[in-house]
Amino acid sequence: MAKQHRALRTRQELIRSAAEVFDHVGFADSSINAISSRAGMSTGAVHFHFGNKRALGNAVELAAAQSLLHITGRIPLRHPAPLQHLVDTSHSLARCLLDDPVLRAGFRLGTDATWQSDGDLWEQWQDWVHMMLTVARDQGSLAPEVGVEDAVYAITAVVAGFEVRARRDAEWCSRQGVNRFWRLLLPRLASERVARSLVPEGTVTPVWRLAGHTPALGR
Amino acid sequence: MAKQHRALRTRQELIRSAAEVFDHVGFADSSINAISSRAGMSTGAVHFHFGNKRALGNAVELAAAQSLLHITGRIPLRHPAPLQHLVDTSHSLARCLLDDPVLRAGFRLGTDATWQSDGDLWEQWQDWVHMMLTVARDQGSLAPEVGVEDAVYAITAVVAGFEVRARRDAEWCSRQGVNRFWRLLLPRLASERVARSLVPEGTVTPVWRLAGHTPALGR
Repeated sequence: MAKQHRALRTRQELIRSAAEVFDHVGFADSSINAISSRAGMSTGAVHFHFGNKRALGNAVELAAAQSLLHITGRIPLRHPAPLQHLVDTSHSLARCLLDDPVLRAGFRLGTDATWQSDGDLWEQWQDWVHMMLTVARDQGSLAPEVGVEDAVYAITAVVAGFEVRARRDAEWCSRQGVNRFWRLLLPRLASERVARSLVPEGTVTPVWRLAGHTPALGR
Repeated sequence: MAKQHRALRTRQELIRSAAEVFDHVGFADSSINAISSRAGMSTGAVHFHFGNKRALGNAVELAAAQSLLHITGRIPLRHPAPLQHLVDTSHSLARCLLDDPVLRAGFRLGTDATWQSDGDLWEQWQDWVHMMLTVARDQGSLAPEVGVEDAVYAITAVVAGFEVRARRDAEWCSRQGVNRFWRLLLPRLASERVARSLVPEGTVTPVWRLAGHTPALGR
C-alpha cells in the first residue's frame, strides 16, 4: 500500500512539474529532462510512469478536466440561486486558472498549436454554463428577453478571454476583474425578481479555499 | 524600382508564409526550411531578408499591428454613432482574425509560450475600445449607470475569447457569433436615446471587403 501511495504521489508530482514546464515554454519545447529535474527526479521516472511526453500531456489534460469538474460540481437540477451559483463558479474558475498550474496547463494545451488534443476544457465549461442558464431560465431567474444561447456564448468567451489576458496581467482573472464583467452583465441577464439579490463579486467561500481540495493533483 | 518592388513582395510573401507556419505548429516548432519552402523559396531568402526566425517573428507582429490599426482606424474624437462604430469594428476584427493569417499569427504570438514579445495586440485593441467608449460616454450614447472600465474589460476579453474558441470552431468569430454578444450586451450598454438605432450584426461594409485592402501583407 505504501508503495502504491508513493507511485501515485510520484505521478502527481510529475504531472504538476510537466504542467509548469508546458506553461513556461509550450508543449513542443518542453523536454522530459526539464520536467523530471523540476520534480527532482530522473528522466527514468518519467519513462517508467508515463512512457513519453505525449502520455504526460494526456495526464495533465485529464487531471485538469477533473479539477474543472470539481470546480463546477454536478449540475443541480434545482438550485435556489442558479445565477449566483454561475457567478460564484466563474470566480472560482478564474481564481484556479491563476493558482493551479495543472488546470491552467490543461486549458492552454487545448489552444497550443504544438499539441493535438481530443478534449477541450472550454467546451466542458461551455456545456456547464449552458446547463446552469437553462436551470435559471426554467426557474424564472433569467430576464425573459435574454436568449440563453447568446448568454452562453458571451460567458464562455469572456472567461476564455480573461485567461488569455491574464497571461500578461493576472488582474484579469482576479476577483476585481471578474467582478467587472458581472457588474456589467447581471442587470441585463437577471429577471426583476432576482436582480437585486445578486452579488457580482461572488458570495461563497470559493472551492479553491475549501480544505481538502488539491486541484493541482487532480483528485 | 522594379528590384525594390520585388524585394518588398518577397518579404511580404515570407511574412505570410511564416504566419501560416507559426499558426500551424507554434513559433518553436517552425523551421526556416518549412517557412521558405511554403513560400516557394530557398532558406537563403529568409536569411537574406530577415536574418533569423526571431526577426521574421518580429516582422509578423509588426505587420499584424499595422493591420489592426487599419481595421480600427484612427480614433474619431467626434463620431455620429460611436457605439455602432465599435460594434462594426469588432465584427471586422473577428472576421479578419478568421481570414488574415498574419493578423491571427500576430495575436497568437502574444500568447505563445515559446515567443517573448514586447508588443501586445490585445492591449492595442483594448486601448482603442477604451477610447471609443470614452467618446460614446462624452456624447451621451452610453447608459449613465454603466462603468466605462467594466465595459472595456468585457469587450476586450470577449473578443480575445472568440479568437481562442475559433481555433476549434470558426463559428465563434463569424458574424452570427459576434452578433450574439452584442445582442446580449447592447441593451445594457446603450443610453435610451441611441438604443433603438443600434444594429448588433453590424451596419457597414466591413473593412476586409473594401477593395484595395490586403491585410495579410501588412501594408
